[in-house]
Parts: sequence; C-alpha cells; structure tokens
Amino acid sequence: MNLDPIFSAAQEAFLSYKNISPSKKAEFLEKIAETLEENRGAIVIMAVRESNLPEGRINGELGRTTGQIKLFASQVREGSWIEATIDPADPKRTPLPKADIRRMLTPIGPVVVFGASNFPLAFSTAGGDTISALAAGCPVIYKGHPAHPDTSKFVGECISKAVKLSGLPEGIFTHVEGGVKMGQDLVKHPLAKAVAFTGSFGAGKSLFNIANDRKEPIPVYAEMGSVNPVFAFPEKLGNELVPLAQSYISSLTLGAGQFCTNPGLIFVPKELSHRFENAVSDALESAAESPMLHEGIASSFYTAIENLKTRSELKWVKVPNAKHLINVSPAFAEIKASDWIADELFQEEVFGSFALMVVYENESELIEVAKKLKGQLTITLWADSSELKAQKELINLLEEKCGRLLFTGVPTGVEVGYAMQHGGPFPSTTDARSTSVGAHAIKRFARPIAFQDMPSELLPDALKNDNLLEIVRQINGKFTTESI
Amino acid sequence: MNLDPIFSAAQEAFLSYKNISPSKKAEFLEKIAETLEENRGAIVIMAVRESNLPEGRINGELGRTTGQIKLFASQVREGSWIEATIDPADPKRTPLPKADIRRMLTPIGPVVVFGASNFPLAFSTAGGDTISALAAGCPVIYKGHPAHPDTSKFVGECISKAVKLSGLPEGIFTHVEGGVKMGQDLVKHPLAKAVAFTGSFGAGKSLFNIANDRKEPIPVYAEMGSVNPVFAFPEKLGNELVPLAQSYISSLTLGAGQFCTNPGLIFVPKELSHRFENAVSDALESAAESPMLHEGIASSFYTAIENLKTRSELKWVKVPNAKHLINVSPAFAEIKASDWIADELFQEEVFGSFALMVVYENESELIEVAKKLKGQLTITLWADSSELKAQKELINLLEEKCGRLLFTGVPTGVEVGYAMQHGGPFPSTTDARSTSVGAHAIKRFARPIAFQDMPSELLPDALKNDNLLEIVRQINGKFTTESI
Repeated sequence: MNLDPIFSAAQEAFLSYKNISPSKKAEFLEKIAETLEENRGAIVIMAVRESNLPEGRINGELGRTTGQIKLFASQVREGSWIEATIDPADPKRTPLPKADIRRMLTPIGPVVVFGASNFPLAFSTAGGDTISALAAGCPVIYKGHPAHPDTSKFVGECISKAVKLSGLPEGIFTHVEGGVKMGQDLVKHPLAKAVAFTGSFGAGKSLFNIANDRKEPIPVYAEMGSVNPVFAFPEKLGNELVPLAQSYISSLTLGAGQFCTNPGLIFVPKELSHRFENAVSDALESAAESPMLHEGIASSFYTAIENLKTRSELKWVKVPNAKHLINVSPAFAEIKASDWIADELFQEEVFGSFALMVVYENESELIEVAKKLKGQLTITLWADSSELKAQKELINLLEEKCGRLLFTGVPTGVEVGYAMQHGGPFPSTTDARSTSVGAHAIKRFARPIAFQDMPSELLPDALKNDNLLEIVRQINGKFTTESI
Repeated sequence: MNLDPIFSAAQEAFLSYKNISPSKKAEFLEKIAETLEENRGAIVIMAVRESNLPEGRINGELGRTTGQIKLFASQVREGSWIEATIDPADPKRTPLPKADIRRMLTPIGPVVVFGASNFPLAFSTAGGDTISALAAGCPVIYKGHPAHPDTSKFVGECISKAVKLSGLPEGIFTHVEGGVKMGQDLVKHPLAKAVAFTGSFGAGKSLFNIANDRKEPIPVYAEMGSVNPVFAFPEKLGNELVPLAQSYISSLTLGAGQFCTNPGLIFVPKELSHRFENAVSDALESAAESPMLHEGIASSFYTAIENLKTRSELKWVKVPNAKHLINVSPAFAEIKASDWIADELFQEEVFGSFALMVVYENESELIEVAKKLKGQLTITLWADSSELKAQKELINLLEEKCGRLLFTGVPTGVEVGYAMQHGGPFPSTTDARSTSVGAHAIKRFARPIAFQDMPSELLPDALKNDNLLEIVRQINGKFTTESI
C-alpha cells in the first residue's frame, strides 16, 4: 500500500490544523465525543462481539473514552499546557541590548497511533493516544488493531464525521488496516513525527528500534506492560489478610488479567505466607473462567505457564484448568525471594491472570529486590503507618523503578485526571518522561519553539502582550495571568 | 578504566541528593558560581591558552557561565518547574470512590555530560548541561574535552570543592578524561540514565545510537549544529544593505565562526545579489584571520572548503587565505537556489567562518527551500512588515524546521533566560523536545512520578496540602498557589 498520499494529506492538514484556535479545537474534540455517544448502541454491540468483554465493561469503557476526550477538550480550552514563556526585550541593557524572546509548545506533526487489543475503545481508535495527539494539534494516522477490526473502523468513521462536521481538513485523521509490515512502514514514513503504541514488549521495542534507525529518528511512546509488584508488610497484611487477598485476586482477574496494571507479582512475609496462600486459594475458587481477547492471547498464556512449570523453584497454588481455546482460568505460584532474585526470568510478564507470590524472610531481601527490579508502571505498598516509616530506604529505591506508587488498594482502575502518570522506566515504556493516560499525555506531541523579536501582529495569541487566552504564562520568570 | 566505582558512587549520591531541599540545592549551585568567581584569574589564563580565544571573550564567557548557574539556582529556589499536580480524593464519588493522586517531576538519575570544545566554560565542565542536571537533582559524570584539559580539570576541582563545602556526597560530580572509547563506555554504563552532548553530528549521532542499543535505552540530548539560514527579502535588504551585510559578516566570523548558531547560509533575492555580494566582500576585507580552537578543526575546515571547490555550481566570492595550521580566514561562495535545492550536500555545515549565499529568483523557490530544509537551531527572517505579511505560508513552513525563529538581527549571541529555545528538529539535535540553553533545560533530566493515596507525612513538601514551597501547582486542573 502506498502511504504517500495518506501522509501528504496529513502533512497538508497539519499546516492549517496547527494554527486553529484552542476553542475551535476543543469543539472538534467534543464533537468526536458527541458522535461516539450518538452511536453508543452500535459501538457497544461491535466491541463486545469482537473483544469477548462483557457489555457492562464495554459500556463503561465507552464512558471512559468520551470522558477522556472531554478532559483533553477542557485542557485545550483552558490553554496553559503550552507553557507560554516570555522574556521581554530590554533595549537599554548594557553592554548589549536584550532581544524579546517568547516561547511556547507547538505540535510536532503527523503522529502514527497503534491501537491496543485490551481496550478496544479507551486505548484504541478514539483512545487517549489519538485524542491527545489531536488535542496537541497533530494529525493522526491510526492503525486499527486486527483483534477488533469492525469496532476500529466504525469508531474511525465517527471521528471522520466529526472532522467533517467541524469543517476541518480530512487529512487530520486517517484509519488504516494492515499487519506487521504496514505498521513498520507507517513508522518508517519520512513525514511521521512521533509514534504512540500500547502492547507487548516485543512489538513496542521493535517499533522503537525502527524509529531510531530512520534517517530522522522520531520519538516512540510505547507502553509495553509491567508486572506491577505489590509489597505487603506483616502488620498491615496480618490485620486485613482476607480482604486484601480478595481485592488482590479481584484485581488480578479483572478483565481476564488483561490490564497493563495487572498486579502479577506480590511480595509476602514468610510468617504470613501460608495464611495468605489459603486466602488466595479461597478467592481463586470463586474466580470464574473468563474469555480472553482472542485465541492467540489465550495460547500465549498457556505457553508461558507451561514454561514456568518446568522451573523447580516454583510451587503451584493453582494451575489453569484444562486448556480452552479462549476461556482461561487464573493461575498462581509461589517462590522464595532468594530464588526470585537469582533469575530475571521471574520478572517477565505473563499476559493474563497469573501471579507470582514471592515469600521474603526479612526486609533486607526487599532492598535486594528493589535494586534488581526492572522499570514498572506501578508499585503498590501495603503497610500500616508505622511500617511505612521504617521503609523510607525501600520507598526511596522503589520510586526509581516506577511511574506511580500506590499506598492503598490495587493498581488496576487507572484514573483519567490531571495528576495521573501511566508510564514508567524501561521496559515498562520506551519513554519514562511521558504518560499515556491523563492530561499530561498531550505534551508527548509537542515541542518548544521560540520567537525572537517577532512583530506583535504575527505572534500567536498565546504570546501577545495582552493575555488574550487568559492562560498562565511565565513572564520574566514569574508565573502570572496578567498581560504585559 | 573501570567505571563501576564512579557510577556506584554517583548512584549512591543520587539516592540522597534527589531528596535535599530546593533551598539547599540552590545554595550548592550558588557555591559553584562563587568558587568559579574566586578562581576567575586562573581559569581565564588556562582557558585562553587552551582555546586560542581572546581574553575578553573568555572573561565574558565565565560571566555567562556563572550567570546561568545563578539562573538555575533561582529556578530551583522558586520551585514551580517540577509541575506539581494534585487531584484530591473524592471518597463519595459513585460508582467508585476516587483516589488521591499527586504528581511531580523527579530527577532521572546519574547523567553523563560531554564537554564542548567551542565553549570551554559555558558548554563545558560547569556549563549548562552539568548545571541543569545538578539543578534537576542528578549527579553528573563529566567527560572533559581533550581540547582544554587543564581548564576542564581545574573547573571540575572547583565544582568538587563546592560539593564538599556544601556537605554533599562526593559522588554528585566526577570529572573523567579519556578518548572516544571512554565516551562510549560512559554511555553504555547501566547506571547512566541520560546523556548530554554538544559537538559534531557524527559524534552526537554515534552516542545516540549507542544509547538506543543499550539493554535499557536512555535519552541522549545531543546538540549537533546547524547552518542557521537567513532569509533576506528585497525591501528590507535594499533599505539596509550595507549594515545588514556587515552584521552578517560579524556574526559569521565571531569566534572564528565556531558557534552553534553561526549563520552559514543566506538566501538573497537575485536583484540585490550583486550589491550584497559587494558589501559582503568589503566586510570580509576587514575581517582578520583568527585562530581556530585547535589544529584538527582548522584542518577540517580546509578539507570541507576543498571539497566544495570541486563543485561547479559554486561561484567563490572569497576563498580562504593560504592554509595555516591554526589561523583561518573566512570564505564565502554563491549558488543559485535551483542548484541548492537539487543537492542536500549544500545543506551540510562547514564548522568555521564559511557561508553560502543562495540567490533566489522568486518567492516560490523559497517555499521549495523551506520544504527541503533540514532541522535547524535557528532561522532568521530579514523582511519589512509588509513583506512579512506576504510570507505567512513560508513562516508557517519554517516554524517546522527550527527551534528559534528570529525577525531581526543575527542568531549568534544566545540569551540565557526563561524563554530561550536552543535546540531544534533533527539533525540539529537528537531531541527537538528539549533545549540545552535556558531555564527549561532542567526538564531534560526529570521524569514524572505519581503518588496515589500517599500518607501526608511521607509526601514530598511540594505535594503536601499546605503549599510549603509556595510554588504554582495544578489542583483539580486549576493553576494556583493556594494550599488545599
């Protein structure tokens, strides 16, 4: 497939779209949300059929999807995200007069977005990556995920309808379908300026490599998963053992374990390991089999479990029920901390409802664990307040290994807000400086530009003396909403 | 050389340094500036001897160096750069209660910094890269540039003295010396978390590739130069031809043309090309030979000119005087826009005082030029206001090709302020999302982290309910200095 016409249209659209007003851009985003709501019935039916996910979940996911579109719309309308920074001229400065310099973020150009299979709506066609790129002012070339082709295409049509209704150039959004080769060609195209991806480590890292091997390397924001460790301490765990075991298993089995923040690793003190194991066992009894997204994912899950079964270090608390093409039951195994530390393989993610419980004998083992641990999206601590006070060294180390540190609850259920950080050190993502959920996601698709001595009538509204957009600006180093 | 002890000390230092208070960090930075000022005499003598740059320039460069240290100190003390963002809990939300999430930037870890030969002070040991990394809270492993070994080592000792006087761990700053292999080993070390570099495209791109080939890829901020095009329009140029030619040649020959923002390319309308050529010729007459930084750079300059001389498209206005080991005179050639467009080779930087004047016949050629142009640090427009109004399409295209767009003057003389952007699209840098000059440079060495339901006593001061640091924070999406 010749991608040149698609990218040329995107580039052409970019040159006008980047200059439209924040309010017009916000209205366009809201129009997308509106179009999706108008088509809720059809979208839900398609997505349920193609993802095997229950209707309640898909209905909720559509709400989340339109909710995050509205968040980006309100962020664009508010407008301060562009970091307007003004150092006014000082013609009388000696020995040399000082020029007038004004800086802001500007969109980066056409963005290639890859849909994720595990969120057919919220991380797919009209998901956070697409919408944050559009919010930044970038056209999107979206490659639909083959696991939900009809949903993807239909939602793409809803976006294109919103583009049309908003009187914007068609090239702002293009939906394409294809396999691995097509994905690589999209990343290789000279007019592509950034890539967003959610999926496996193998696929994400391969796109990252391709992007860096280009004549002009481009940023790749690949969210590649994580085992999201939970560290349980004796007082807290002892006092709330059964409810914590239950909430852990609920989180582990939610959506058949197919969340990026699925907690696949839990560190439990030796003195409570039998009790926790029993409580987990009970909770797993009542955890039903659930269908995975597609047969390939189910098959990978079984293969990963079979591989782990060859390891003598593991003691199995629960093995999956007999293989089924699509319905999978959870699995749970135990390992000693010293064995876990000795082999990096035990850090690898098994996509689905599998957890490894690591039994530690003392807290110095946890310091070792923290040093060995690879980068994660999230880390959770279950500790009472006196235990936390004694864990400052551990917490200090764990901060270096994750993007979000939780002190209650479970890591699934990612809030879409201003403060969310969904992205952590490699290998959980290829760019720990970014988030793929929440308002800050928009900054992935922008870069700074400075205008020196630009005549006032040419300056973007954000940088004129009068604070026309009523945004927060930094003037001579001071944050203010005042005009100059 | 075994780098493990150096990086282990840096990592150890990081785990405490990242947590010191903004005011203590600002005092430490100011102590560095103070120590440099105390040793001004010795530093200037060494740097003049090793760089061949005149004493006035070096004295000024030291002032710029301590000035930028003070800018980062005041930015750290003010504190808002960490983007504190708070979404308070809402336990009554339905269907699910909302967790408390608080996000801020946190330093990235030990940073490897490479010194530049062309700024023995301001872009070297205590230069913007080192200081912005220290300001962010990252230890620095600094590789001295072999062109000024004594200056580099001595300034390193000044920093280490400031570390000691501030009661901070020694591992915060380490000065190392070595060749290409040492540089590669520094970038490969598993504890390195980011790289900053200023120098040639070849060296910068090679470090970028090494960093991306690591098991854990890390960001590389390489500023690799640019030809900094100037676009001259007939009205403006016709009215101010002689002074513009003079200021152009002054900028071109400043510091023997060894600035990153040296304007090596100028587009001149055909009807004024003879007059401009004559004015340039006159200005070049009075431009003295000046010594380059070292013999290798002088020799590369002559080789590049010899290569260009084989091209029949060029007409030479001025060739360099007879070769000299170190003293070099400027060179200037002319080419037709259509020839320039036809071969990318004419976009390559010749490090030193060489400029190519591109003669255009009409403005549609400039649109072609803008489309072909590679990424630049700066682009300058010389046009009167009516001409500018007619160039909106061109300006819109040029914005995509640079980090800073100037509307008067020349690109040399980079202001160190809040709004400066020194960094542009590839190949001028490896990361257009960053700047290596000005306050925003600090953000290169930080990444976001979110704390969910963290007990108040553990929260960093920046994120506590009381706005203890009196910084600008985003609370529920609203920018404010209020407490919660």
